[in-house]
Amino acid sequence: MNASYSPGLEGIVAGETAISTVGKENLGLTYRGYAIGELAEQATFEEVAYLLIHGTLPDASELARYRKRLAALRGLPDGLKTVLEQLPAKAHPMDVLRTGCSALGALEPEMAEHGANQVADRLLAAFPGMLLYWHHFHAAGRRIVTETDDESQAGHFLRLLHGSAPEELTRRAVDVSLILYAEHEFNASTFSARVTASTLSDFYAAVTSAIGTLRGPLHGGANEEAMKLIGRFASPDEAEEGIRGMLARKEKIMGFGHRVYKTVPDPRSPIIQGWSRRLAEAAGDLTLYRVSERIEEVIRREKGLYPNLDFYSASAYHLCGIPTAMFTPVFVFARIAGWSAHIIEQRAANRIFRPVAVYTGPAPRKYVPVGER
Amino acid sequence: MNASYSPGLEGIVAGETAISTVGKENLGLTYRGYAIGELAEQATFEEVAYLLIHGTLPDASELARYRKRLAALRGLPDGLKTVLEQLPAKAHPMDVLRTGCSALGALEPEMAEHGANQVADRLLAAFPGMLLYWHHFHAAGRRIVTETDDESQAGHFLRLLHGSAPEELTRRAVDVSLILYAEHEFNASTFSARVTASTLSDFYAAVTSAIGTLRGPLHGGANEEAMKLIGRFASPDEAEEGIRGMLARKEKIMGFGHRVYKTVPDPRSPIIQGWSRRLAEAAGDLTLYRVSERIEEVIRREKGLYPNLDFYSASAYHLCGIPTAMFTPVFVFARIAGWSAHIIEQRAANRIFRPVAVYTGPAPRKYVPVGER
Repeated sequence: MNASYSPGLEGIVAGETAISTVGKENLGLTYRGYAIGELAEQATFEEVAYLLIHGTLPDASELARYRKRLAALRGLPDGLKTVLEQLPAKAHPMDVLRTGCSALGALEPEMAEHGANQVADRLLAAFPGMLLYWHHFHAAGRRIVTETDDESQAGHFLRLLHGSAPEELTRRAVDVSLILYAEHEFNASTFSARVTASTLSDFYAAVTSAIGTLRGPLHGGANEEAMKLIGRFASPDEAEEGIRGMLARKEKIMGFGHRVYKTVPDPRSPIIQGWSRRLAEAAGDLTLYRVSERIEEVIRREKGLYPNLDFYSASAYHLCGIPTAMFTPVFVFARIAGWSAHIIEQRAANRIFRPVAVYTGPAPRKYVPVGER
Repeated sequence: MNASYSPGLEGIVAGETAISTVGKENLGLTYRGYAIGELAEQATFEEVAYLLIHGTLPDASELARYRKRLAALRGLPDGLKTVLEQLPAKAHPMDVLRTGCSALGALEPEMAEHGANQVADRLLAAFPGMLLYWHHFHAAGRRIVTETDDESQAGHFLRLLHGSAPEELTRRAVDVSLILYAEHEFNASTFSARVTASTLSDFYAAVTSAIGTLRGPLHGGANEEAMKLIGRFASPDEAEEGIRGMLARKEKIMGFGHRVYKTVPDPRSPIIQGWSRRLAEAAGDLTLYRVSERIEEVIRREKGLYPNLDFYSASAYHLCGIPTAMFTPVFVFARIAGWSAHIIEQRAANRIFRPVAVYTGPAPRKYVPVGER
């Protein structure tokens, strides 16, 4: 057998979704029918998470209740704190979230009476505290209180990170970034969540798979790689020279190109670019921003590739005072909304994922006992 | 857009593999070219695991070294033990393995110098100890030593479970069962491991995804469901009546049928059935076995379905003194061999899995601020 197939399932339809469109003609990126640009400009992350998970935008009282519920779900059980304390200071922060999510699933299992929506809220509310409890425990030996009364998850995260209320510009930059990262159809991590959910496994298992999948440098890890790249250059001219050298050596440059946005720019990129610029101006230092712009210019000219969301997210996060190692975890704080919506959708019309393979191995052969080999 | 597609990717080629064939004409189930029947009759699980991961059967000295290496990797780091102690007695054992695997990935991360093969060996060696450390800690407050000098993983597991060396019949029954469960091409858990691996995430992340996926009742959970079914009936006649009633009420019966073995029996089923019978005869009580036989008869007659591996595994495991809640974990002890082989294979010719979806959601709509909703 030598059937042709599409490696990585590129272009292969793996299911139906009512959650988002990605790069569709005349639609672009929409969440439940709303254009990403309008959401990023006018909505808050909590509205968007509610929209993705529940299918409609909340009205004022629904939103208030949702914010209150999330705030009430930010505490961590003692068992989870002990688990987080065991994970070493040098651990990959995504390993911390993956393990924390899995452990929470053992401590607060999904049940009929503690269903999918509640687990979705719980994880959305608890992830920043999970990361920062671990972080501060190892960085400073402090056991922080993970409950805050911040209205937004962005504010909550920044307060836990820095120990004080964030400036509004910074908070809103992170809030918008969470909106942009919240959902993206059948990307690899979401797809892995759906594959896990398709055996009717529990909600935490599906999210744990998604976190592990997002961790890879070809997926969520890309924003961290972009930061490492930008951080190497002290000026736009240095960046130009450096990038040309990398291209000549055929080195992989993260943060550019996208399987789905092949011929069109990623619509999320100019939005986060605007925030990156605003943050740089407020900080009174445009170096990092100008370096990023120049890298974009060189890669567009030389390779015809557009930046994706990860590229300007790097400088924006850096300017928000977020350590590079936390960039992919912030992606988790956002994408948990999309993952949750997809797990719920997968269950509503489930069919176990079980594709087939083309066999390329040895022909039938006879077993020879070990003594005769 | 309303493209036709195959739900659950049924029949869709998702990649190439040289590891196994499942239900292929003139081949049936083979691991690296060896027929499952010959392996189950003549080989040991360690030979099969080596074969799957390394591509060839080990010679006598390679096998001896492999057994020694596995035996040396059975200890658990203190941090992992503390993590396991936090997971409650009532936790799902698959949540324990999922969390333990993920935590081990944070404690002993995969590195260039601590590569895929070593992680594969480590997990294969450590999983039984992980489960039983947790089990005995909660069941009896005992912190067991997870190192044993048993030559086989089957013997090691049974010794940790029961606190004494197993009878050879029991040990070999579990050994054969591990061979049968070791690999099965692009089943859902293996596929999820490959999806996670495809972002170039770490080895532990891929295995963690696989464990979470295997946990579901449509996949690994099926052998536990089969046991619950069999355990309900005190005699073959009672089983006949009970099963007919279930069929009349259109209840789902686990352990029968298989997406790939549609028109042919699962070749693994008669092998484990033979072991189930042998164990029952040795125990001097054929009730459970006869009940199983009758259920098979009724379902074949009424539905035309054959038992899959899970069905007779249930009675076999029960007769080996394995608690029902550990049936799916035993599946993990075996399938880690296949998962490891697939992760290594995926990396060797990687392409990120990123299929697309048919959009069925709302048409474009205008964002309305929350105050105006």
